[in-house]
Order: sequence, then C-alpha cells, then structure tokens
Amino acid sequence: MRTRITHQDVEDIAVGGAVLGAGGGGDPYLGKLMAQRAIEQYGPPELIPLKEVPDRALIMLPAGIGAPSVIIEKIPRGDEAFGVMRALQKYLGKKAFAVMSAEVGGLNGTIPISVAARLKVPLVDADCMGRAFPEIQLVIPTLYGVPATPLVLADEKGNEVVLSTINNQWTELLARTLAVRMGGFALMALFPMEGKIAKKATLPGMVSFCRRIGRTLRSARRQKKDILAELLKVTKGTNLFRGKIVNLDRRVEKGWNLGELTIQGSDDYRGESMRIDFQNENLIARIGDKVLATVPDLITILDQDTAYPITTEGLKYGLRVTVIGVPCHREWRKPAGIALAGPHHFGYDVPYQPLKAAGGVRKRHVLSAGN
Amino acid sequence: MRTRITHQDVEDIAVGGAVLGAGGGGDPYLGKLMAQRAIEQYGPPELIPLKEVPDRALIMLPAGIGAPSVIIEKIPRGDEAFGVMRALQKYLGKKAFAVMSAEVGGLNGTIPISVAARLKVPLVDADCMGRAFPEIQLVIPTLYGVPATPLVLADEKGNEVVLSTINNQWTELLARTLAVRMGGFALMALFPMEGKIAKKATLPGMVSFCRRIGRTLRSARRQKKDILAELLKVTKGTNLFRGKIVNLDRRVEKGWNLGELTIQGSDDYRGESMRIDFQNENLIARIGDKVLATVPDLITILDQDTAYPITTEGLKYGLRVTVIGVPCHREWRKPAGIALAGPHHFGYDVPYQPLKAAGGVRKRHVLSAGN
Repeated sequence: MRTRITHQDVEDIAVGGAVLGAGGGGDPYLGKLMAQRAIEQYGPPELIPLKEVPDRALIMLPAGIGAPSVIIEKIPRGDEAFGVMRALQKYLGKKAFAVMSAEVGGLNGTIPISVAARLKVPLVDADCMGRAFPEIQLVIPTLYGVPATPLVLADEKGNEVVLSTINNQWTELLARTLAVRMGGFALMALFPMEGKIAKKATLPGMVSFCRRIGRTLRSARRQKKDILAELLKVTKGTNLFRGKIVNLDRRVEKGWNLGELTIQGSDDYRGESMRIDFQNENLIARIGDKVLATVPDLITILDQDTAYPITTEGLKYGLRVTVIGVPCHREWRKPAGIALAGPHHFGYDVPYQPLKAAGGVRKRHVLSAGN
Repeated sequence: MRTRITHQDVEDIAVGGAVLGAGGGGDPYLGKLMAQRAIEQYGPPELIPLKEVPDRALIMLPAGIGAPSVIIEKIPRGDEAFGVMRALQKYLGKKAFAVMSAEVGGLNGTIPISVAARLKVPLVDADCMGRAFPEIQLVIPTLYGVPATPLVLADEKGNEVVLSTINNQWTELLARTLAVRMGGFALMALFPMEGKIAKKATLPGMVSFCRRIGRTLRSARRQKKDILAELLKVTKGTNLFRGKIVNLDRRVEKGWNLGELTIQGSDDYRGESMRIDFQNENLIARIGDKVLATVPDLITILDQDTAYPITTEGLKYGLRVTVIGVPCHREWRKPAGIALAGPHHFGYDVPYQPLKAAGGVRKRHVLSAGN
C-alpha cells in the first residue's frame, strides 16, 4: 500500500530507527529535524512497497559515513545528500525512480526521507540490513554480489568524489579514508540498482517496521503502559541487562566511534557487570567471559526511565540504562551473513550464538545455567 | 619544430628528468623501460611545441602519486596511466588532443611518453613545474588558478576514483590519502586544460630541456669530458658539496619518502658536514646553520664517479656524492611562487635566498664569508 510520510511518521521512524540502529547510525534527532524540514518545504514523499518498484527502475541510496559523534558538532549543511544523489544521477546519465535507506538505523534511516522529498521521488519501504552497521560492505546486497559503486561521496565544503571499485570491501576502505580526511563525516549516494536486483537483495518492509516500533513506544507512553514490555513485544527482543554506566571509553578513531562501556548491574542484575564494545554500533555484550549477544544480532541500550534508545555518541557516565537484544533479520543468520558480519569479522574469537526471538526478559538463572 | 620521440630520446629525457627531479619524481629507470616498451609497441609519439597546441584543444596530464620507494617493489602493471586517461576522457565526454607532463622530473617525466604512444596523441613540450615537487598543488597552474580536477586516480587492482574539489590543496589531501590506502602509489590523470590555458600557465620547452641535459651527459661521457662541468653548464647549476653519505634516515610516511641525510665533506669540503632534508624531493641543504639552497630551487645529488643523479629512494649509506644546486624556473621566483612552494610551505623558518645561476663551483671561502 502506498502512503505519504507525514511529520509524525518521521518522528516514529526516527525512534524506531534508533532502536534498530543498535547504538549506531548517527543521532536520529538531527535526521528527524532535516526530514521534517524537507517535508515542510517540498511536501511529504510517498512510501512505496518494494514489490511495486518496476524491475528496470533505478533505485539509489543516500547515506552518511563517518563517526556519529562528529555530526553533533559538524552538522551537515542540509543539501549534501541531495547533491550527491544529483551527482550520481549525472554520472550514470539516468534519473532515479526512487530512493532507499542503506540502513534503517539512526540518521541513515531519515536522510532518505529528506532526499525523497526534495527529489520528488518515492521512498522504497526497504533497507539493506534491517539495522545499522559500521562498514559499507556489511549489507545484504553484498551477499548477492551487488556492487556499492559507482558511489558519489561529498563533504559540506564542496569536494566531490566518484568511486568505482573492484568490491564492496575496497569501497569501504576508500570511502572511509576520504570521510576521515574530509573531517570525519561525509555524505554518499551509493548502491545504484535496478528494482529487479533490489527485490532480491534488500529487506522489504523495514521503514514501516521502524514506524511501527516508534508508534508502539509513543502509544505505550500515552497510555501509560509498560513501554519496555511493549518494545520487546514489537521487536521480539530480550531484556539482557539493567544498571548504571560506570565506565565509558569512547574515541573517534579511523572514522568511527570506537570504544567500550561497563554497566554495573542493578535490580535483578545486582553484583553483575556487563561490558559492551562498540564500533559506531554495539558489537558484543558480555558478563565476564559469558557472551550474551553479538553482531549481527542487535544490542540496543535504552534509557531506563523512558525506554528510549541511546546512540553510542549519547552514552554518558552515570546513565541508568536497560540493554536489550533484538534478533537480526534471518538473511544475516545464513552462513554467508555470519561470515560477513558475525563476531569474527569484528575481531572476536567467539562463535555466533543466535539470540532467541523471546519477547521477554533474560532471567538471572538463565545466565547461571551457562547459556 | 615537431619531432618524434625516439628510443634514445627516452633515455636522455629520463636522465635529464632525474637531474631536474631534485631527488624525486620516482625512479627514472622504470619509467624509461615503460616508455621504450610503449614506443616499440605503438610507435614513437610526436613531441610538439606548446605554442602549436590549438587554443580550444584539450590537454590532459598523466602522473604517478605516492612514495617513490614503493614503486620499486610495487611496480605499476603498465596500463594504469592509460586507463586513467581513458577514464578522464570518458568523464569529460571529450578526447584529449595531446598529453603533457605534470612534472618533468623523474618517472612522471616519462609516463606521459608511454601514454602519448599508446593513445596515439602528441606529447606537448612543456611541464607544470620544471622540476619535481611532492604535492599536487605545487605547480605553476595553481598560480594561475587552474584546477587539478576533474582528476581520475586508479590503482593496479582496478579501483578508480574521480575527484572534483574546491581547490588544488584539497585535491592533494584527498588524492594522497587515497594513494596511501591503495598501497602507497597510484596513477592519475589530472589538470585537464585547454591549449589557451596551458600556454599561459605551463612551462614550455621542458621536455626538450630534459633531453638536452641527457644528451650533454651522454656526449660528455663519450668524449671523456668533465661530466660534472658540462652538467653545471647546461643546467646553470652550482656545485654545492662533495662527500660521503654517513647518515640516512628515510621512511615511507603519509604517502611520501620522508627523511634526511648527512654528507661528510671530502676534498675542498673536508671538515664540513652537509645535511639535506627531503620529502620525495630534496628540500633544503644546510651546513650547520647555514642554508645553501632551498626549494623552489633544485638540489640534486649525483653519484661522484658518474655525475649521474640519484633519486631519494636510491640513496645509500657510504655513497660518495656531489650535491649541485640548480636555479628554479623564474615563475617560481615570483612572490606567489615562493609563497606556494618556498621553504615556509615545507615548515622551514628561513627566507628563500635565490641560488645564483652560476654554472660553477661554490668555493669554501664563499661559505666562510657568511653567504
């Protein structure tokens, strides 16, 4: 069903995107403001189901690349994402039929709304990962051999680069190094692909899933329901931990937010201590040597009071948080998906243990039992 | 006068280019072999005077970027320079009328010969600096506001990048960072410009000047003349020092050969010690606190026995060398030229003192007299 993305939808998509962002994808607040402004200026863009995209129609993806914490101070000028899309269209000599999110998580889930509004083309209800990931090649299209290039990358100063590479790993290496040089953050238009390819290699329904998550949180809050319980229900997530951030080491390095944090358990988790490592996104959650969740499953940190997600650049010493795990899309759980974006890729010598689609709470005794 | 570049010309141009390379520009031996091979395969290209290029004709420059010492082990596949030129033509939607050297010094003076042969277009008898310099923006066209972009950069693996920047300084920053990522060396097609611009902003006669230097050395050797004296005569150079390399610190860093060497004086210079700093090219020659020569003038190190130039990657502990200074092109001596590529740009807090066009030998007492 085709719908229009409203001002309220943007709010809901941004919140849902922050949940699926697993800590990364960039501050959704900024993306929300940009998208709402674009809707006011150019009108609400259409959201169309993936299956309605014609096979030969061209889809292009706008996305930011860099360390999310840089964006807080180095705010995009606003038209870079539009500029790179226009440049990629010029390079290809073809107009885009629609735009799509590379990652529905965080800022990269709302940038495409702004671009769709301004380009006056629909936004496809799909994305390439169903979460956020810190490297360009970590997308489902890579598993289907879809190249990220030609890719246009630009900064707010007016520098523009077109990349054509031999594989998506090289695209990541070169684009990341450029983004670092450009000041830590840049905008891209990438993964130009035909509808036929997108239907095979991307994940349908992801934008409306984000919106559903956002709506659920909003209505739970309005109706004074248990927000966390509602969130776990809609995401099929598991409550992994609850406590206070007592240590945080976060640095902008190699074009990412890299770091780790320690959460001292409270309530049911008193006496335990959880450590979470992140590279823009949360990668692995451990209690001592026990691994509770790893990529590609989603580890999301929520504010304990509001149950609203906190991105890695928003983490602070002393914050009281709830950590939830959300099962990743089934495409990631295939052997090729684990090989591409599992714990080994990020340097962790642990096997991937799929998080159960629980919709519940991890009991302390579950951990003690050795799971 | 239009001529064809012969097998022997390539040899002479490579030697002359190494003299004007001031230590940089990359190993001329490799470039010589590539150019001679191209001439065998595709026939000798034409060398045409700058003034014969039609005003509206498109000129493009092929050049390598990176640390010359990398090229010794990571030898170009051979067709990268041709590939980037073809890609730039495609990007511009225009055919090149001719190619030109960005820098006549070193490898970058011979790559254009290969490309001209293979593209079957003439080589323009000119270059953009009359020497070699380690950064893209350090060219005479920058002084005339000519942009280096659109620029195509590619590696031997098949990755290709098109840059469009706001100024030549940004082109250097982005291209250098890409070259480092690509393994320390890459090929570029850059400074696409019309004949009218080239006639104003480039230095005519530089290829034939290189050839003349090479011929002079060759005939001096054959006729058993004083090779050094002949070289100083043809380049209007000055003999600055003579001695043995007793210290050499050379590292591949940030995409350059960076380092310094110490030469212990012999003969007339016994008891003195010269230090030369380099960034691909030799930048400054000092004896204690006395500055004998700095960029943009040329400092070239010669093998003492043969009077043939040694590039910075060929320097070795124990080599007996002669150091000569060659006055740079008059365009560099204008205030804007000194500001762009003088000692301050490279971090030296010394004023630029023009080297005299001596054609002679620095006497020890000249130094003692405080000059």
